[in-house]
Amino acid sequence: MNLLLVNPNTTQAITDRLAAAARAAARRGTRIVAVTGRRGPAVIRSRADNAAAARECLALARAHAPGCDAILLGVSLDTALAGLRSRHRVPVIGMSEAGMIAASLLAPRFALLTFGLHMVPVYRELATGYGFGARLAGVAAVDFAPTAAFSEPAKVQAATLAECRALARRGAGAVVLAGAVFAGMRRDLQPRCALPLVDGIQCAVALAEAMHRLADR
Amino acid sequence: MNLLLVNPNTTQAITDRLAAAARAAARRGTRIVAVTGRRGPAVIRSRADNAAAARECLALARAHAPGCDAILLGVSLDTALAGLRSRHRVPVIGMSEAGMIAASLLAPRFALLTFGLHMVPVYRELATGYGFGARLAGVAAVDFAPTAAFSEPAKVQAATLAECRALARRGAGAVVLAGAVFAGMRRDLQPRCALPLVDGIQCAVALAEAMHRLADR
Amino acid sequence: MNLLLVNPNTTQAITDRLAAAARAAARRGTRIVAVTGRRGPAVIRSRADNAAAARECLALARAHAPGCDAILLGVSLDTALAGLRSRHRVPVIGMSEAGMIAASLLAPRFALLTFGLHMVPVYRELATGYGFGARLAGVAAVDFAPTAAFSEPAKVQAATLAECRALARRGAGAVVLAGAVFAGMRRDLQPRCALPLVDGIQCAVALAEAMHRLADR
Amino acid sequence: MNLLLVNPNTTQAITDRLAAAARAAARRGTRIVAVTGRRGPAVIRSRADNAAAARECLALARAHAPGCDAILLGVSLDTALAGLRSRHRVPVIGMSEAGMIAASLLAPRFALLTFGLHMVPVYRELATGYGFGARLAGVAAVDFAPTAAFSEPAKVQAATLAECRALARRGAGAVVLAGAVFAGMRRDLQPRCALPLVDGIQCAVALAEAMHRLADR
Amino acid sequence: MNLLLVNPNTTQAITDRLAAAARAAARRGTRIVAVTGRRGPAVIRSRADNAAAARECLALARAHAPGCDAILLGVSLDTALAGLRSRHRVPVIGMSEAGMIAASLLAPRFALLTFGLHMVPVYRELATGYGFGARLAGVAAVDFAPTAAFSEPAKVQAATLAECRALARRGAGAVVLAGAVFAGMRRDLQPRCALPLVDGIQCAVALAEAMHRLADR
Amino acid sequence: MNLLLVNPNTTQAITDRLAAAARAAARRGTRIVAVTGRRGPAVIRSRADNAAAARECLALARAHAPGCDAILLGVSLDTALAGLRSRHRVPVIGMSEAGMIAASLLAPRFALLTFGLHMVPVYRELATGYGFGARLAGVAAVDFAPTAAFSEPAKVQAATLAECRALARRGAGAVVLAGAVFAGMRRDLQPRCALPLVDGIQCAVALAEAMHRLADR
Repeated sequence: MNLLLVNPNTTQAITDRLAAAARAAARRGTRIVAVTGRRGPAVIRSRADNAAAARECLALARAHAPGCDAILLGVSLDTALAGLRSRHRVPVIGMSEAGMIAASLLAPRFALLTFGLHMVPVYRELATGYGFGARLAGVAAVDFAPTAAFSEPAKVQAATLAECRALARRGAGAVVLAGAVFAGMRRDLQPRCALPLVDGIQCAVALAEAMHRLADR
Repeated sequence: MNLLLVNPNTTQAITDRLAAAARAAARRGTRIVAVTGRRGPAVIRSRADNAAAARECLALARAHAPGCDAILLGVSLDTALAGLRSRHRVPVIGMSEAGMIAASLLAPRFALLTFGLHMVPVYRELATGYGFGARLAGVAAVDFAPTAAFSEPAKVQAATLAECRALARRGAGAVVLAGAVFAGMRRDLQPRCALPLVDGIQCAVALAEAMHRLADR
Repeated sequence: MNLLLVNPNTTQAITDRLAAAARAAARRGTRIVAVTGRRGPAVIRSRADNAAAARECLALARAHAPGCDAILLGVSLDTALAGLRSRHRVPVIGMSEAGMIAASLLAPRFALLTFGLHMVPVYRELATGYGFGARLAGVAAVDFAPTAAFSEPAKVQAATLAECRALARRGAGAVVLAGAVFAGMRRDLQPRCALPLVDGIQCAVALAEAMHRLADR
Repeated sequence: MNLLLVNPNTTQAITDRLAAAARAAARRGTRIVAVTGRRGPAVIRSRADNAAAARECLALARAHAPGCDAILLGVSLDTALAGLRSRHRVPVIGMSEAGMIAASLLAPRFALLTFGLHMVPVYRELATGYGFGARLAGVAAVDFAPTAAFSEPAKVQAATLAECRALARRGAGAVVLAGAVFAGMRRDLQPRCALPLVDGIQCAVALAEAMHRLADR
Repeated sequence: MNLLLVNPNTTQAITDRLAAAARAAARRGTRIVAVTGRRGPAVIRSRADNAAAARECLALARAHAPGCDAILLGVSLDTALAGLRSRHRVPVIGMSEAGMIAASLLAPRFALLTFGLHMVPVYRELATGYGFGARLAGVAAVDFAPTAAFSEPAKVQAATLAECRALARRGAGAVVLAGAVFAGMRRDLQPRCALPLVDGIQCAVALAEAMHRLADR
Repeated sequence: MNLLLVNPNTTQAITDRLAAAARAAARRGTRIVAVTGRRGPAVIRSRADNAAAARECLALARAHAPGCDAILLGVSLDTALAGLRSRHRVPVIGMSEAGMIAASLLAPRFALLTFGLHMVPVYRELATGYGFGARLAGVAAVDFAPTAAFSEPAKVQAATLAECRALARRGAGAVVLAGAVFAGMRRDLQPRCALPLVDGIQCAVALAEAMHRLADR
């Protein structure tokens, strides 16, 4: 099957990281087409960036969806998700939505971890909007810009593990790593973390494969 | 004061209609700068159109906000409202948000009326997202495309009045005309309608003037 | 236009303070008629006081509304608001409701500040009842009786500013000063506070003027 | 034990009806002191009447509560309930609250029936405010003024039974007769109705007796 | 009247404690038939235990309900409550539900106290599911297994009182002792606690007697 | 991978139908172990049946989970789901939960269709409890007992298609067939239905495979 992975921001390195994580999760026979925004924010760090990125999601999907069996949003605010879903007949799956679905199947209560304290309420609204409010054990953030995942990976990883331990004490049974630059980081972190960690884009790939499998049963 | 009226769709006639209604409501000394999208949907008729229009809202606001005292969204889904509000220090006011605020001050329960039956749940979500769910007596639609307001105004007006009568029977104490092309239509319709009708963009102008007045008290 | 400002408690000094703040915000041509309860609590400091004050709101409004274009509730629990709204055809606007509307136009999330820790849940219920639950960054209180605003104004102001700083750290983008005796205090406090402060009765005046302006467009 | 039954409206005949129903339900040893408002609405038929009646509830309770073991609100909007509860140390029980509690113990879903179509949303808000929103199978009204229960009892009873049958078809497992003038009517109606009917003031008596019994265990 | 008290867990000592507390609350003429699960968990300490105990509730009720006038759930998660209520025509009352109803009549806001920190979110969900979310001042736990109520009663009581003091500071006006092994402990604790303590099974008895009384009025 | 499919009711024919549908959806390498309740209801047709079946879910899972990589609930009320999830470390997936997840990825709004009008509110509560309340376009039922799917399949299928057409008119973009006996019926029905139909147990298989795939990425 063909999956379109849409990263609406303009940073190719983030697309590359997402695509690598997606491919590591994909089954044989799944082809990932990853596209990057050409206009819009370099990284999405605010409600405004998120709104600004919506059209690029639509435009990239319109341009590249033909021939694809599902559309994955490689942006952790799941930008333009409802809009894409109303336009396309193939499944449209947000990476954070997918992560929360997976976490919800693993534990009675789960948490989100993202970048930047100012984004905590935004992700809480995202989870609540999906109906997961009663399942949330907490929303936390590492106090770094997302780009620190490239420039200071060790510090980011250490902070991530520390926050996960704190979230476990608040009753989380799993943690969704909510940030595009977290993609693929789970592989390194999971062995050092008692709670299951959830990589959103990998979940999105797996859900898309599941939906595709179902379509012709 | 200077008000920026942002119509993110690309139809100048809609901007003109919005601007005329806005100017009819504005006080002496209020200047309306109305701008129209250059890219994006001609009319916003779906969740997808709404998402696609978000960046134009941001871009138009960024380009034209300097020197303005408030930003008004001249699009009845209040596209990109939270994003704009997080970026700009001046008040940002959506036309449907403004209409619902006004209606909520007039009656214990109110209703929305829009174009197209498929948009009813979308406007219901909008109202619920603003916290007005318990105040809603109903959401209804005239079964026309928004462009019919230009091409078949008499039919649209007759249907609008019929729906308002039905909404009154459902307990509405006021009706928000939720659609950019409804702008200015209240003047003709109100004399024929027992319920107060609310024109969103005019409310947005009045709220912006109120906020401006308060800022230097 | 004529605005009726109803203070249902029996303390004339509070009415005077509210009326002064209201007049400072009013436009030329707006006349404020401020009336004070003759029976009922001297200050509203509990759920019971609030209930006890409801009839005075109704009675004062009935007696003085003729000839007025809007009714403003000069009581920070917005006593009897729904009841007044169902009885009067002119807009009825609560001072805290107005403050929250204004704050909601200024920032994605805002806070309330009131008098007395025991009132915190009561104001939280008020905000939630208006549908602003998801917008609340916090509800806090200065640990004084409302009358301290007269007897110890410097202490109250210092505590208010300290609480505002704490609310900013919790993510508030604006603070509604929820208490009738806060009326007019914003003028002194705003220069010393990084967050926008919102004066409820002044917002109510401005909203009433906005509604009046709209009524004959 | 001594129960204070507060009817804040000024119609003695309604107090008499409530008191008779209450006494029919009371255990030996329970004394009912029923008091009637001296100021305020004759019958509560709107949100405004309800607000206007609040102080009389407080005043009557303050005057007559000494020596009483519980306070019952003999008004079907449970006027001033939270206010009374914050002021008095004895249990305070609203008649509709009591009816809904009883109905909730009898069936997974229940309904309310009141007087006047315009009151349907008001009772829906009341039930929702108590947390019973998810248990509601419906809210209906007989299209009479409450006084018709005195002047046209046969018509009111016939309409009541017809509405109950309709509510049964909507999935109600019990019906709360929400209106002070319904007091005592259950005795006649129940034999002709398949669904359990719930008389609010009688439930309030029984709950008060239960609370009293518990207090010294 | 005859009350069936169903303890679905298999620990006779818990049934005995519940039955003793129930009988201490019961009126003359009320007979308590207390039955204990024969299969299933010894104590209910998790969501899984709770699910595992549901059938025993149904089976015990089916076997012993004939001749009983109400069914009381002597298990603090109110296991299988909705299921029992849909099957039996007599009132079915959960002990924690009854405790929350009683607490809600005593104070504007109340709290729950249970055993085991991991159970805090489970009881919060229980209260929220009953519609008491907005009334909750807090949910707390003593950090003991329920069996400590038998083996270390003094420690449990001391911890209980300490938690109640903390809950009072959070605004609770009453505390529901949510745990079957708390049954009867209120008698000792109340004199040492400023807040009203609520014993769930005793409330359930009193509510059942109230419902029975009402049935033939 | 090994999947445990738990049907807690005692009807082997239902298990067989579920297992056949599950196997038709499963990938090569997925082995389905389907187990049937030995005690409890023959078919789950009420809230009481659902509660009665919970322990069998726990018992079957405990007995058969060792060696399995996920547990699927082959019962359309997703009996004991939270309990199982708190006990087992492998993913636990309810068939209706899985169906709703899949439907939510396909369309902005979806519907449920089940057996028996009296079950409509029960399924609505299930969906709302999962957080899908705002996504629901409707809940409907064919007015047959579940066993009619065996005895009168043509009638059931015709009624199902008729209801789906009605749900499409209410705005549903997909329909979850919520009933264990619907398993496998989608294959015949989909070609005759314009809306995507969702088979819960097949979705559960696909989600379990997705979760398994992710676990070792």
